[in-house]
Order: sequence, then C-alpha cells, then structure tokens
Amino acid sequence: MIPCPALQVRGVTPTVSMREVKEALMANAAPSDPTRPSRLDRRKARTRQALIDAAVELIAAGRGDRASIQEITEAADIGFGSFYNHFQSKDELFATASAEVLERWGQMIDRACGEVFDPAEVFAVSFRISGRLGWTHPGMARFITGSGLGLLDARTGLAPRALRDIRAGQKAGCFAALDADVALCAVAGGLIGLLRLCQDHPERMHEHVVDQLAEAILRLLGVPAGEAARLATLPIPEQGRW
Amino acid sequence: MIPCPALQVRGVTPTVSMREVKEALMANAAPSDPTRPSRLDRRKARTRQALIDAAVELIAAGRGDRASIQEITEAADIGFGSFYNHFQSKDELFATASAEVLERWGQMIDRACGEVFDPAEVFAVSFRISGRLGWTHPGMARFITGSGLGLLDARTGLAPRALRDIRAGQKAGCFAALDADVALCAVAGGLIGLLRLCQDHPERMHEHVVDQLAEAILRLLGVPAGEAARLATLPIPEQGRW
Repeated sequence: MIPCPALQVRGVTPTVSMREVKEALMANAAPSDPTRPSRLDRRKARTRQALIDAAVELIAAGRGDRASIQEITEAADIGFGSFYNHFQSKDELFATASAEVLERWGQMIDRACGEVFDPAEVFAVSFRISGRLGWTHPGMARFITGSGLGLLDARTGLAPRALRDIRAGQKAGCFAALDADVALCAVAGGLIGLLRLCQDHPERMHEHVVDQLAEAILRLLGVPAGEAARLATLPIPEQGRW
Repeated sequence: MIPCPALQVRGVTPTVSMREVKEALMANAAPSDPTRPSRLDRRKARTRQALIDAAVELIAAGRGDRASIQEITEAADIGFGSFYNHFQSKDELFATASAEVLERWGQMIDRACGEVFDPAEVFAVSFRISGRLGWTHPGMARFITGSGLGLLDARTGLAPRALRDIRAGQKAGCFAALDADVALCAVAGGLIGLLRLCQDHPERMHEHVVDQLAEAILRLLGVPAGEAARLATLPIPEQGRW
C-alpha cells in the first residue's frame, strides 16, 4: 500500500494498493461512458457493501455493539485500514447496516400491502408477513432477533412505518386508544418471540402459530375478537409479489 | 495484599489484606456465638453484595455484557483482585445479579397476589404492579429496560413464573390457546415499552396508561374485552403490602 496524494485530493482513498492506482488510472484514461460508474467506483461500492454485510451478520449474531473494527474487517475480508475509507466509526457502519435491512423489510411490506387500504388489514398483513420471515428470509429474521427491541430505536425503516399504521388505525377507529409507542413495543416483542421460536424450535413453528399471534396482536390493538380472527386468516399475497 | 496459605486452605481467599488477616484471627480467637457469622464473613458478604449491586447498575445502564471486570470493581469500590474471591467470571456475577433482582421482583408479585386465585386476575395484578415499577421501584425498572428481552432467558425469577401463570390461565380456559413463550415475549415487550416511556417521557406516564396496556395484554391473551376492562380497573393491593 502506498499513500497517493493525487487520489487523496479526489477523496478516493488515503492509502491504496498499486492495483487500485492502476484501476483508477485506467478508469480515468478511458472514460467510455462518463455516466457509468468506473471500475474503481464499483470496487469501492463492493468493499462498502462487504462491510455492511459483515455488520448485518454481526448484529444477527447479537454482537452488534461488541464487535471490534478488526473483527468487522476480517469478516468482510478487507484490510483493516480500508474501513475508514468508507465509514468514520463503527457506530456509523452499524447505523447504515440497520437502516438498510429495515428499509428492505419496510419496502417488502409496502409491496405486500399495495392493494390493501383498511388500516387493521394493513397491520394484519404486515405482521403475518414479518412473522414468516423465519423461513422466507432467515437472514433478516436473525437480524431482527439479534437486534432485539433496539430495533425500535431506528428512525428509518419499520418502526416509523408501524407507528404510522397504528396511529392511522386509531384515527380510523379500528384500534383502541392506547399509547402507540408502548403498543409497538408489545407488537415488536411478540414478533421477536415468534422469530426466536422459529430459530430455536423450528418444529414448533407453523404458519398458524404466526396467524394466531397476529390475531392476538390485533385484539391487543383493540380489534374485536371476531374481526381479528377473520383478518388473521384472510389469504395473504403470494411470496413472489413482495 | 499478601498470599495467605492458611486462609487459602480454608477456602476463604487466595490473597488477603493484613486487615482481613487480623479480622480472621480475631474472629477465630473469640467465637462468641458459633452460629453467628464472623466479622470476616460479614465483610465478605458486604464485598460480594457491592459487586452484585455494581452489576445491577451496569445492567440498568445497558452495559451488562460490555463492562470490564476493572469497571465492575471500580464501581463496587473494591480491589481488582478481590473479584475472583467471589465470582469465577463476569458471566457468573451477572447471572447472580439478574437472578437476585428477578427473584425480588417475583416475590413482590407473589405477595401482591397472595389472596388472588383467578389466573386472569393474577396476571392482571402482576402486570399492573410491574408496570408501576417506573415510579415505585425506579432501580428495578431501569434493570428491566437495560436487560431488554434478554430478561426472558433467565431460568429463575419472573419468566418461569409468568409462563406458569399463562399456562395456568390457558388450562383454566381463561386464556386462548397461543404459544406461551411467544405470548410471554409480547407481554415482556409491552412491559419494557411502558417502563421506557416512564424513563424517557415521565410526563406521558400515568397509572391509567399502565392499566390500559394491562387491559390490552389481557385481550391479547384471549380474555374477552369486557372482562379485560373489568380486571384492569379492579383495586390493586396497596404498595405497602408488596
């Protein structure tokens, strides 16, 4: 690795390998399409993504706040020094990784609820899809159980959407008056319990366990028991559609 | 500090201060009442308790799994080396500290429910008292929010009691069939949400917020809405009785 002031000025990286220098020069020498990311840009994006993926795995393993930068760069298979080319601190990386997973999860739910308008039904579909993550998206499920209720501290992603849905349901008179933040904690606790069960005792986990809890959560929110039972057994969009 | 083989053989402590040696000799020289703990025993018990209290504070601050032994002994105001006279590892100390707080909490609930026999009412009283910890026992409340759902991993204390109560309610037909572990996660999530609200926004916290969530949790467990509302507004035993 050599210091490379020319690249440093361009804000690329303070220390780069000869290979990176060559790639940068080649990318600059032959800009076949200026709107297309250069090979260096793509390489940087891959390294950044490797760090984010490593952070997601560490959060999933419940080590989100204990892993060292050394451990993170080893898991991402990149040099220790490269870390600071992409993130200023461990906290920044973990916040970025959380935001990315939560956003992916939120978008999945938005797609599944695309044609649903009743707030209680939106909530039911969201919860029933999230409860199925244990087998539809095991990596995301491990991320959720590894995060625990710390999940709700995120300002982007699912917590704000869930709060918005609870408040919309209360405004529409579908849900009882209940402190929305507190209700959300109970909902998140139930979801984490489901996903843990799926990890620790997969033999006890079936779709109807998820739907039973969805029904119970709807009752908690104030949906009458009969209506909660109906909403929790409606067909949900097929997995390919979310 | 000097190594003291005589005391080591007796399993007292591998390194002791001169003061401890003197106290031990005095305690042995004049055993006025052999059933009464000697001054050394009392001193050891105090040091042990100081370590447990420090661990409880660190868990409450959300640092239960990150604090170093150095940090723990500094918080307990004892010498670093004394740690290993009382606990073999940090994990052992934290497990002991958790068990102690959970047991205290469990006994408080048992006292409050002494004259209640209906399983749904037992659950209601337990939850309503626990939700009031934010102002009746702020230290215990901080311990609960600091532990998060990790609280449920404890084999002693409240989690097994709560599971027992949920199963008793299901057996008696008061509660719906629902995976009890999953239901417990939702209950714990709701309780943690309440106690966090009390810490972060004390101005939003009132007894009726606790009772509203107790009512919602009873509905979640399958208690009919009208009965849940009744149980959540019954008088609860006065604080002096638990």
